[in-house]
Amino acid sequence: MSKIVSMASEQSTGGRIENIRHSLAHLLAAAVLKKYPKAKLGIGPVIENGFYYDFDLPEPLTPEDLKDFEREMRKMIGAKLLFSGEEVTAAVATKRMKGQKYKLELIKDFSKEDQKLTIYKTGDVFEDLCRGGHVADTSEINAEGFKLDSIAGAYWKGSEKNPQLQRIYGLAFANKNELEAFLKMREEAQKRDHRKLGKELQLFELVDEVGPGLPLFYPKGAILRRIVENYITELQESRGYQPIWIPHITKGELYKISGHLDKYDAMYPPMKLKDEADYYIKPMNCPHFMMLYKAQQHSYKELPVRWTCTTTNYRHEKSGELSGLTRVRSLTQDDCHVFARPDQIEPEINVMLDMIEEVYKKFGFNNFWVRISTRDPKNKDKYIGDEKVWQESEEALTRLIQKRGWKHEIGVGEAAFYGPKLDFIFKDVIGRDWQLSTIQLDMNLPKRFDLEYTDTDGSKKAPVVIHRAILGSTERFLGILIEHYGGAFPAWLAPVQVKIIPISEKHMAYAEKIKKELVGCRVEIASENETLGKKIRSAEKEKVPFLAIVGDKEMESGEVSLREHGGKDHGSVSVEKLKSLIK
Amino acid sequence: MSKIVSMASEQSTGGRIENIRHSLAHLLAAAVLKKYPKAKLGIGPVIENGFYYDFDLPEPLTPEDLKDFEREMRKMIGAKLLFSGEEVTAAVATKRMKGQKYKLELIKDFSKEDQKLTIYKTGDVFEDLCRGGHVADTSEINAEGFKLDSIAGAYWKGSEKNPQLQRIYGLAFANKNELEAFLKMREEAQKRDHRKLGKELQLFELVDEVGPGLPLFYPKGAILRRIVENYITELQESRGYQPIWIPHITKGELYKISGHLDKYDAMYPPMKLKDEADYYIKPMNCPHFMMLYKAQQHSYKELPVRWTCTTTNYRHEKSGELSGLTRVRSLTQDDCHVFARPDQIEPEINVMLDMIEEVYKKFGFNNFWVRISTRDPKNKDKYIGDEKVWQESEEALTRLIQKRGWKHEIGVGEAAFYGPKLDFIFKDVIGRDWQLSTIQLDMNLPKRFDLEYTDTDGSKKAPVVIHRAILGSTERFLGILIEHYGGAFPAWLAPVQVKIIPISEKHMAYAEKIKKELVGCRVEIASENETLGKKIRSAEKEKVPFLAIVGDKEMESGEVSLREHGGKDHGSVSVEKLKSLIK
Repeated sequence: MSKIVSMASEQSTGGRIENIRHSLAHLLAAAVLKKYPKAKLGIGPVIENGFYYDFDLPEPLTPEDLKDFEREMRKMIGAKLLFSGEEVTAAVATKRMKGQKYKLELIKDFSKEDQKLTIYKTGDVFEDLCRGGHVADTSEINAEGFKLDSIAGAYWKGSEKNPQLQRIYGLAFANKNELEAFLKMREEAQKRDHRKLGKELQLFELVDEVGPGLPLFYPKGAILRRIVENYITELQESRGYQPIWIPHITKGELYKISGHLDKYDAMYPPMKLKDEADYYIKPMNCPHFMMLYKAQQHSYKELPVRWTCTTTNYRHEKSGELSGLTRVRSLTQDDCHVFARPDQIEPEINVMLDMIEEVYKKFGFNNFWVRISTRDPKNKDKYIGDEKVWQESEEALTRLIQKRGWKHEIGVGEAAFYGPKLDFIFKDVIGRDWQLSTIQLDMNLPKRFDLEYTDTDGSKKAPVVIHRAILGSTERFLGILIEHYGGAFPAWLAPVQVKIIPISEKHMAYAEKIKKELVGCRVEIASENETLGKKIRSAEKEKVPFLAIVGDKEMESGEVSLREHGGKDHGSVSVEKLKSLIK
Repeated sequence: MSKIVSMASEQSTGGRIENIRHSLAHLLAAAVLKKYPKAKLGIGPVIENGFYYDFDLPEPLTPEDLKDFEREMRKMIGAKLLFSGEEVTAAVATKRMKGQKYKLELIKDFSKEDQKLTIYKTGDVFEDLCRGGHVADTSEINAEGFKLDSIAGAYWKGSEKNPQLQRIYGLAFANKNELEAFLKMREEAQKRDHRKLGKELQLFELVDEVGPGLPLFYPKGAILRRIVENYITELQESRGYQPIWIPHITKGELYKISGHLDKYDAMYPPMKLKDEADYYIKPMNCPHFMMLYKAQQHSYKELPVRWTCTTTNYRHEKSGELSGLTRVRSLTQDDCHVFARPDQIEPEINVMLDMIEEVYKKFGFNNFWVRISTRDPKNKDKYIGDEKVWQESEEALTRLIQKRGWKHEIGVGEAAFYGPKLDFIFKDVIGRDWQLSTIQLDMNLPKRFDLEYTDTDGSKKAPVVIHRAILGSTERFLGILIEHYGGAFPAWLAPVQVKIIPISEKHMAYAEKIKKELVGCRVEIASENETLGKKIRSAEKEKVPFLAIVGDKEMESGEVSLREHGGKDHGSVSVEKLKSLIK
């Protein structure tokens, strides 16, 4: 796949909530000015879930100040203040923003760029240099739907050379319920933060000397990777897909043919050799797949060729955008390319849909919808490829999704120039949307690489390529899984499935015996010289699915005392029973 | 492991055979001059298994010429000609080599470098500018132990700008038996050439646009890789080793700490980013392992930490040295680093020896010997690390190998400056030596990376690192395996274990049924519309271990007619029997 789409931002609720958020930023500025008349105002934009405003103030703000500001803002909301804007000249703006040095700087900047200047008034308590986008009056704002959230330092215009201002962040929603739902979700998300859990559960590590966005995985994380990747591999192979293997580097020539060298900007720069071509680390696998297909002759009889490779790509994402595992520079894709005849597109995609559904059910992502990206019918010249293939495949994609009764949205005009596409957006257990699987038709690369197969009549034809990833990338998927399960993985996924806890030193041999009997399971023995209580608490913290406690009683019965993570007590069970619980 | 050692050249048989080879080169030149008195002589060095000599001749040589030269050379051997050398001045050399323009050029070159000049005479039939290294007289040469092998073009001094000469290659051994053994081995090796078999069996491909030394693997090759790698992974984990995962790139900082940036010359050049450190593709894994160890606290109780990672390294080997899979630029190592206390060195290495023995028995490499590289006792200053650790570990290595009664050689003074080492050299089925497994002690990297563990008394100590690879690299090991088995893999390794051959179209459904029953096995159905004979021949060519032929008779009995690759006929067998034969 040549593109990983980042976490889908919350679906837009239209302009209304943004007007509310923007208006609240003005009310905040008014409240701050009331308490600190000499405050110098920076900017106050709308952001995801709310807004912020930057201030230059004589003293540091405290959480108490936020309470005061909130109270003052609610008063203004109750007063039904009108928002009204007017276009002004730079001279007028300069006069009305007198003493507000940051605003004056902005007026100069905007004037240089020949931008229109507008000033918005809030009742008669406040006015601000502002592009607009407000409620008509403050009665549209629910006084219980917002909250001043936090204070942070922020340089004016983001530059360290400028003065540091104090930024107040606010959250704002349509009503109290929505605000509370968000706060609860956020609290839950913080508890589940995969960066925090990744450390606590010893899954992965980011190391300065290696670099940002390049996580290293401890044994537990490496085992988790492997379980997830093997699961996909086995599923694929049971459906007739075959693995291939490709190296991580290539001559630049390959990306000249594919066109990436000119257009793809997340590529790492070349490794420049003397007397040899430049080499690149691969940011995607498609061109390697194309070359391997091209190296052999293909007949219509052996199509579709279904090749997969789970391999790591390297993309130089901006360091500011990196985050734990969900945004990395090393992304291991469960990549697949199907080389098909046009008449095979529909059945091939149908198999892919089966697999996507099966995988996400397995991981408990039961709530999802599909975005179907199609051509802009008014602008057909933009697209390459056979008209008939376009028409039939768009119809097939839509028909297949509708037949399954899956929620979907048709993005007319959102297809790539080389083919229609399906994106799958999944809700995790705390309600966040994640775009994961993708199916993309491609009529471009087969052409650029001169791929062909011999058809029934002996003529050479170009196959259609279907790109597909189910997980997207191992790293990002694991980041999401860690948060989805809050680190308490189901037994089939858990790096350690059973922790055997010997009550004392003399039960150690029995613990070892039980471990041997649990062959095929991932088992650890708590061997530290700790009290029983401490050993149990520590296994609970590690979120191991099953704790098997063994002492005199268990040695006598030949069983174990079994507890499940989260508290369920199974009492005394046999090793066979434990095995069947794990499977 | 920071170094893969290339195929061990045949063990030196001392200077004697080299003297024979060198003397034969002179006899060849004499024979050529006899037939072509105007021949201009290039150089005639000793090479592996023989010698060559370059000539500038008025006409192209034919195989018939070689026969003539051989005959002439045998005559000279029979004549018991003496070899005698004398040091000469440039003036004398110039006079005696008159008319030999290439020799005159060499005399000039050597004079510039102030080298001594010597001329060797062969009886009174020939004299040559030569550094020496000859038999006393030709009676030392076995007339049946040599053979003129082939003719090739070669530029004078290897440069395209110079005239092209004709090179005659000769083979030479102590006697006829050795020569014939070599010829037989070479013929066998050519049949087994993994580059040829790799194509025929559709295992891998080298693609110009990707680059030399960077093989891509077709499904059958990818499955072969996986079987071999999974086998090692499972073996390792059954012995308490744990997997980790590391990215393929890193900031250069890591190699500054390790020291590779200055000293390791097979590194690919950096990827140079704006406003960020240089990044490198990893040529080895050790530094990544060190950083992951360092990221956590370690106590004496949890040592040894035994980490493994099968991951691909990239080394910019010279393109002239690349060969199929046995010399590549992308090498996937079954890498392992054990972080141990000094008292754990011996038991840890013992486990490694067990594993190496087990693995190579499994692949049928039963003939091997060990090189033990130790310090030069007269030059102890050259080595870093604790004196006691050096002494004890050298003793332990030797003791462990001797106790097992394994053939070994002690290379005094051959240890790296940071620790003693074991190399394992295996003979393949046609008698070639391959250096594969390595165990290397390292007291340097733990120091450079400031690694530590807390000892019993609370003090911080540096662990010893033991590097270890069993296969060396997947690519090279597969190249060797392909040749070792001549492409006819045993069933447990074969990418396709059974080929089901339906006698006609109407037996297809039964073939599909048998395939389903063979769940867990790697099965293909021959589905082409070919004759039965052609289907069988093609499966034989693919070297599939088992052919299961199904027709009316088999449908009736519910069995298959089974043939093994190579001819063995099992007659009619049940699916259960077939399964047990595969396992």
